[in-house]
Amino acid sequence: MICYKNLLIATHKESFIGYVVLSDSGIIKSVNKGKCNIKDALDYSGHILMPSFIDSHTHGGYDFSFNDLKEKNIQDKLNKYLAEIKKEGVGHVFATTVTASYSDIKKIASYFTEKYPKEFLAWYLEGPYISKEKNGAHDENLIKNLSTKEAQFFSEVSKFIPVYLALAPEYSQNKKMLNQYHDQINFALGHSNDNNFDSKYLKDNKYKRVIHFLNAMSGFHQRNKSLVNSVLEDTNRNYLIEIISDLTHVRSQTLNFLYQSFDDSNIVLVSDSLPNKGSKNGIYKLNNLEVEKKDYLFYLKDSSTLAGSGMPYNLILKNFYKATKCSFSELVKFSSYNVAKSLKSKTLGRIKINTKANFVLIDKDFNVKLHYFDGEKAKLD
Amino acid sequence: MICYKNLLIATHKESFIGYVVLSDSGIIKSVNKGKCNIKDALDYSGHILMPSFIDSHTHGGYDFSFNDLKEKNIQDKLNKYLAEIKKEGVGHVFATTVTASYSDIKKIASYFTEKYPKEFLAWYLEGPYISKEKNGAHDENLIKNLSTKEAQFFSEVSKFIPVYLALAPEYSQNKKMLNQYHDQINFALGHSNDNNFDSKYLKDNKYKRVIHFLNAMSGFHQRNKSLVNSVLEDTNRNYLIEIISDLTHVRSQTLNFLYQSFDDSNIVLVSDSLPNKGSKNGIYKLNNLEVEKKDYLFYLKDSSTLAGSGMPYNLILKNFYKATKCSFSELVKFSSYNVAKSLKSKTLGRIKINTKANFVLIDKDFNVKLHYFDGEKAKLD
Repeated sequence: MICYKNLLIATHKESFIGYVVLSDSGIIKSVNKGKCNIKDALDYSGHILMPSFIDSHTHGGYDFSFNDLKEKNIQDKLNKYLAEIKKEGVGHVFATTVTASYSDIKKIASYFTEKYPKEFLAWYLEGPYISKEKNGAHDENLIKNLSTKEAQFFSEVSKFIPVYLALAPEYSQNKKMLNQYHDQINFALGHSNDNNFDSKYLKDNKYKRVIHFLNAMSGFHQRNKSLVNSVLEDTNRNYLIEIISDLTHVRSQTLNFLYQSFDDSNIVLVSDSLPNKGSKNGIYKLNNLEVEKKDYLFYLKDSSTLAGSGMPYNLILKNFYKATKCSFSELVKFSSYNVAKSLKSKTLGRIKINTKANFVLIDKDFNVKLHYFDGEKAKLD
Repeated sequence: MICYKNLLIATHKESFIGYVVLSDSGIIKSVNKGKCNIKDALDYSGHILMPSFIDSHTHGGYDFSFNDLKEKNIQDKLNKYLAEIKKEGVGHVFATTVTASYSDIKKIASYFTEKYPKEFLAWYLEGPYISKEKNGAHDENLIKNLSTKEAQFFSEVSKFIPVYLALAPEYSQNKKMLNQYHDQINFALGHSNDNNFDSKYLKDNKYKRVIHFLNAMSGFHQRNKSLVNSVLEDTNRNYLIEIISDLTHVRSQTLNFLYQSFDDSNIVLVSDSLPNKGSKNGIYKLNNLEVEKKDYLFYLKDSSTLAGSGMPYNLILKNFYKATKCSFSELVKFSSYNVAKSLKSKTLGRIKINTKANFVLIDKDFNVKLHYFDGEKAKLD
């Protein structure tokens, strides 16, 4: 039996000083409020316990890319990646691929339809079904509309793993697929220059999430039905809005504005981290493009166009917390619970007794001090 | 004695069914809740009584321009204008001039420093101290920064009439004037392309209003300190935000978003009407520029750049009411009370007993059925 005491325990509903008791095999036996008198309990006064984080938009890190899943013999790189993200407090991810050719996509799909690690909650295809005008770091030559054949293919894949698909709505072919396949495929709105967006697609819940809100989409305007307008003006949101809270993709004051504008059930914080998160500064390949890493950020080579973030997820959370002064319970929603709920999980995003432990213990600077993943204590150094 | 009964009486605090009693000389003798048993009371069931409207950003109408005040013998045109705006429910205005040469500005100033009608609450100079990039319908060749000599001049004029001055903050000279003269001159923020705005100018109340919000200013962006960002992100607003609620300058859904985003003490609805409001469609001169009137809108000639509105103020209110479903009490704030309060008036924007009547009676379609201005019943047909 293991006991951690004097914790600030944060759930999506409340936060309180208390203690948790685990079995030796990593099952949560009890979650308790107040002082703990158990002998040998480990004292973590000043630390916060939260469900372990879900990074639902990440392209990899530590030299591993989800686009690499098309290659054979990537298990070692993947294992290293999965070990490293635990140090960020991330238990689970949406395996997010960038724009690739359909033949490469099919190879990646075969990986998911066979076997994949329990850390993967979904396959998220950010491209190729996006807009050329708002392509960001995606290879323009591979961008296309979603065909019926491909939509049927993703519907098949979704029997193995939930499939999220970025879909720019300004093309009639994409609109047609949206109407036909929104029950099977989880469509994500963004990487789009639509300035005449029909917000009924949001109201009818045909989109399940909005891709990194404010980045790479048609911007707020007094006379256009842009994506930013449509999301800000919607008063009955039943989808998740991704925010990259690295303070560069979105300014600190704008983070707070978004926090004030949206219900806490709608916000999900994502890293959008690129495969070379954790690598040295320099030039790297991102699929067919070259990007330059400068500390926690990536830019398209020789340009000021942001290509993605390289910030660890725990710092993503820290920045949002500091910018908004939100509560730790809200932070649980933004970092795990809302995504878990969207997947109808009854265990993730919670500190639930009689389940295998999935939680992190962070200090006040959001350093991860302890991480239980699926009942096992992760190695943090 | 005159009595109007079965009214919906709206004040900035509440709205109720009731009746008002006026003396024969137009003094409000009582404002009452409930049923009225006074013999000969005039029945206005289904009508709304509000303080008469203040259009605090208008360039004129009915062939009269506030820039014409530099000319001699404009009294007839002005009289006609003042009679016409009463039909829109407008009792008082901010006499708003567009960009002009300093010599013309001085001629206009001499009009204000001598005598002006009681309808004029302030002189509002929209230009020439604005940005060339966001000049809208203003003559680019006359745009300049505010000099010390000019600021001193406006300080002198403000002893006769409150002076409001549009000032683009991206120029260091304008910033200097802002810091030195904000106690004497009421600065207005807008017609500016500032993308690195220091929001302390708002927090320190150096700006008293924001010019037609969302129009002609640096737009919302995730990484810039634009004007739209600065206003939306401000959490402690002590200035007024103008909105042109004609459904074209700002879309209906965006109006509702702004209504939801701001406190009702911050919003002021303006017409920004051009001198040819009320004229036939066609080409007109706006100072040195040519503009084309198309129904309620003006465009720069041969372009799609909006140059201003030609919508009567009562329809401006109707549009906002329909877009937002706000209360009539809020509409009182947006159409008179907030501006009156900013001018420290104890009578305007109110239905106050023992004062000369200043109120309108509108039907449910916002047609003005009755208008008392300064105790006198205006002629409406």
